[in-house]
Amino acid sequence: MSTHPRQFAGVTRLATRMKGLKPSAVREILKVAESPEVISFAGGLPAPELFPVEAFAEAFAQTFAKEGAAALQYGVTEGFGPLREWIAARLARQGIKATASEILITSGAQQGLDLVGKVLLDPADRVVVEEPTYLAAAQVFHGYQAELVGVPGDDQGMRVDELPAVLGPAAPALLYVVPEFQNPSGTSLDPQRRQRLVDWAATHQVPVLEDDPYGELRFEGVSRTPLAALTDEGVIRLGTFSKILAPGVRLGWVHARAELIKRLTVAKQFSDLHTSTLNQRAVSRLLETFDLEGHLAKLRRVYRERRDQMLQGLEAGMPAGTRWTRPEGGLFLWLELPPGVDDEAVFRAAVSRGVAPVPGSPFFHRVEHRFLRLNFSNQSRERIADGIQRLGEVVTEAASTASGR
Amino acid sequence: MSTHPRQFAGVTRLATRMKGLKPSAVREILKVAESPEVISFAGGLPAPELFPVEAFAEAFAQTFAKEGAAALQYGVTEGFGPLREWIAARLARQGIKATASEILITSGAQQGLDLVGKVLLDPADRVVVEEPTYLAAAQVFHGYQAELVGVPGDDQGMRVDELPAVLGPAAPALLYVVPEFQNPSGTSLDPQRRQRLVDWAATHQVPVLEDDPYGELRFEGVSRTPLAALTDEGVIRLGTFSKILAPGVRLGWVHARAELIKRLTVAKQFSDLHTSTLNQRAVSRLLETFDLEGHLAKLRRVYRERRDQMLQGLEAGMPAGTRWTRPEGGLFLWLELPPGVDDEAVFRAAVSRGVAPVPGSPFFHRVEHRFLRLNFSNQSRERIADGIQRLGEVVTEAASTASGR
Repeated sequence: MSTHPRQFAGVTRLATRMKGLKPSAVREILKVAESPEVISFAGGLPAPELFPVEAFAEAFAQTFAKEGAAALQYGVTEGFGPLREWIAARLARQGIKATASEILITSGAQQGLDLVGKVLLDPADRVVVEEPTYLAAAQVFHGYQAELVGVPGDDQGMRVDELPAVLGPAAPALLYVVPEFQNPSGTSLDPQRRQRLVDWAATHQVPVLEDDPYGELRFEGVSRTPLAALTDEGVIRLGTFSKILAPGVRLGWVHARAELIKRLTVAKQFSDLHTSTLNQRAVSRLLETFDLEGHLAKLRRVYRERRDQMLQGLEAGMPAGTRWTRPEGGLFLWLELPPGVDDEAVFRAAVSRGVAPVPGSPFFHRVEHRFLRLNFSNQSRERIADGIQRLGEVVTEAASTASGR
Repeated sequence: MSTHPRQFAGVTRLATRMKGLKPSAVREILKVAESPEVISFAGGLPAPELFPVEAFAEAFAQTFAKEGAAALQYGVTEGFGPLREWIAARLARQGIKATASEILITSGAQQGLDLVGKVLLDPADRVVVEEPTYLAAAQVFHGYQAELVGVPGDDQGMRVDELPAVLGPAAPALLYVVPEFQNPSGTSLDPQRRQRLVDWAATHQVPVLEDDPYGELRFEGVSRTPLAALTDEGVIRLGTFSKILAPGVRLGWVHARAELIKRLTVAKQFSDLHTSTLNQRAVSRLLETFDLEGHLAKLRRVYRERRDQMLQGLEAGMPAGTRWTRPEGGLFLWLELPPGVDDEAVFRAAVSRGVAPVPGSPFFHRVEHRFLRLNFSNQSRERIADGIQRLGEVVTEAASTASGR
């Protein structure tokens, strides 16, 4: 219990967990980048012109026509049965053993992160994250007053071999990883490292939280086995419809062993009772008839073209000393600035030139100002070409200033 | 940090906050009562036959037709602007000063409870609740490891005059109250007590959490001033569309001072990013043309008829020594059993007779087995007549056994 003097509502004394929690730096940046004349590579938005609006409209219309009031009533916390069945079957196609009782429907994958934190984390518990890591996951762990331990990543994802040195003998409470097309780096975890990670987790009895929002968006290269397919226990897996259908319906899921799903369900019960009955039923109905494979093929084609456009622009316009990842899927690539060039300075200069990257520093637990995250899913090829050209000019100028030329 | 031996996922060591948190007793009871041959007074469900299904269908169709992809994209955490405006205007009609910047859209009022707990409560903080109180609110406060302090209620709501004696000199972190048609008791807080409560909160600088899911459902008597209308600060107010439109869209709101709304928004950001863009836009569109006043008039008329049917049945069938509240609105009434009759024994006997009340004991912080909660919104008058007759027989038998006759 805090001993601070208590103040009144509005300026009320806050819970300890809120200290130092600020609005997401990236979301604040997004506000700057929102102006339509700015070419934004800042958000993590899927391409709205590819949302299957008509299929959604038809599915909602059918849901009202055929299910009526049942689609508007309270529902069970675990989620709508047929949707849980669909997800379990989809996971089975990815080599993951899953039954409907091992699926909890959540209000987006973000709620999955929050519920896992709620159920597993006490203050001062250690959580392993990648360096850099997904910002909104780090926020959740900070919110549960966990201690974040960063493990460096490279072009092949988390340096799993570094775990013992970074952690010492005591096991952490949780390990969080985005193995496919990581946010922010775009890298995928190497197959051998995956096996090593799962083995390490089993040896030390550490639950692994595998966050996979982008896995269905692989546009080249060979699919890699999900962590949850490498072991029958120890992996808690998050998924979402946000990137394969649309984020505005807020539908995601947690896959975990049934005992843990029961605990997560209790936590969800007091968090928001359940996820929208209507949205669950309408999306379940949509999936009965929608050509999801055709839709995914289209997403992959368009996102690949956009990534290629971005890579081509970077090749043409970035000064020597700049490096970037070449993601085989997902929404983001990750750019390392030339020596002496600061991410936030580049961000400010770029916005004044009408283009918005995201500075990389908020994604690090350590102090690290050499990176930018670039989203390629949310702009046309023309605007990507234009924006990357401007960004190249900004970085080239900053590099020449930094090198004293 | 816990010192328990760590176990693996599925049987993982849980956070301290989860200890003793069980699935809601009432939700478990609801599963028993779900069978269609049981006449259930157990749930808190609004009447689905009164949901404006066609208006919803039309609003969703229009939203897809006119807003297209924008209705399916990510949105801001605070919520959809026009919906926040509508809520602020509605509050103004109730005498509550509110601007859109003082409204946060939530995934049902339950999420409002959770976010307030997240932002305000540290372990061992004291939270004042009524005895009896709303179970899912108590669950939230337990989840934040708060210490619940019960203040007795009577037919006029919380005994505000008891606060000093119950609390002693130290101020609690929060006071939680459902002033209109309380769940479970159906009582409304007396106007003088409202003023006294607000004055007490100002003197002691205690934020008051006013939960008002049922206030629009007054079917007789004089409207009472909301706590938030009695003061410009100190009250955090929760509202919801669940009881006036439908719960399946999961739309509620928090009204509080803008500084606190900002903190709640940060907490929501890492809890689930934002509430469904689609549902917010569709309901906002629905409210532009829907005859809400006519709809509320219908709800009030039907619920009043059902309440009257229940009161009439109780009058005819309950043995001497049974008392019940006569709520002027809402969904529930509260029945005190004759001396020596146990709520859980009555529940079991009633279910075997095809009728399901809710035992009152879970709603108490203290041990108290003399009450039942009866919901009157979710059954037809015919089924209410039949169910209350059976319940009367069960209670009559139990009372005669208890009195040794």
